[in-house]
Amino acid sequence: MKPDQRLRETEQFLHQQIPLTRAMQVRVESYGDGQLTVTAPLQPNHNHLGTAFGGSLAALVMLAGYAFLWLELGDREAHLVVSESTLRFRRPVRAIIRASCRQPNEATMAAFKAEFAATAKSRIRLSVVIEEEGQSAVEFAGTYVARRAPAAS
Amino acid sequence: MKPDQRLRETEQFLHQQIPLTRAMQVRVESYGDGQLTVTAPLQPNHNHLGTAFGGSLAALVMLAGYAFLWLELGDREAHLVVSESTLRFRRPVRAIIRASCRQPNEATMAAFKAEFAATAKSRIRLSVVIEEEGQSAVEFAGTYVARRAPAAS
Repeated sequence: MKPDQRLRETEQFLHQQIPLTRAMQVRVESYGDGQLTVTAPLQPNHNHLGTAFGGSLAALVMLAGYAFLWLELGDREAHLVVSESTLRFRRPVRAIIRASCRQPNEATMAAFKAEFAATAKSRIRLSVVIEEEGQSAVEFAGTYVARRAPAAS
Repeated sequence: MKPDQRLRETEQFLHQQIPLTRAMQVRVESYGDGQLTVTAPLQPNHNHLGTAFGGSLAALVMLAGYAFLWLELGDREAHLVVSESTLRFRRPVRAIIRASCRQPNEATMAAFKAEFAATAKSRIRLSVVIEEEGQSAVEFAGTYVARRAPAAS
């Protein structure tokens, strides 16, 4: 499958399965070079100050982690949830929101995948950042739990 | 102003100023007895597993804190932002999402308001919980910063 096709499929999956991602107009922009990036335009995601709504920022960073793990695991029967997370808002976001999940180091990724394959359950800590004009605006870290389970309805 | 009217006004303010709250169908349900509660139905906020999307949960707990402070300060020129937060997801939410911001103790609230009145800037730590069937499903704590500034456009 072509890389672009995988991104479009992941985007369609999000839009079909999580309706808020349609309202937010989430796009899966890129995946490669050690990171996955999702975007959302400001217009449907602004707050009362005309900058990005904190709730949209929180949703987008979480989605970046989900999309990264879906693409890494390549397993639609993997159920992913966030168990806990921290979020730091450093400065307002004034234009398109662009959240990038950075791939953990290879040993961590390999251990996560190996445990998932062996036990059908695994967890991993992911970091996501939203940058604007080269400056960090939002910093997220969350623990994602993956379980293999019967296909969701 | 009647209490119900204040809730409807706050809800309208959210819907007008933060479009994602319309997509989420956020309601300001109650304010009194030491807490403010906002709700959102599951349908526009579900994920691929048919439970509440983590991004919707994150947005709703943040909104509970905003709405609480707007109503407490009674000042539309107060700009509120969250500087940092922690979020713990304990169990999936399977029906209407109901997020309650618990009022800090009176001394903390009084100090927050006094500093805001004196310096036009103040911060406060708020806790918000989402419960379902009497059990804690989501626990949020965030630091909110209030600034008085010229009216937002």
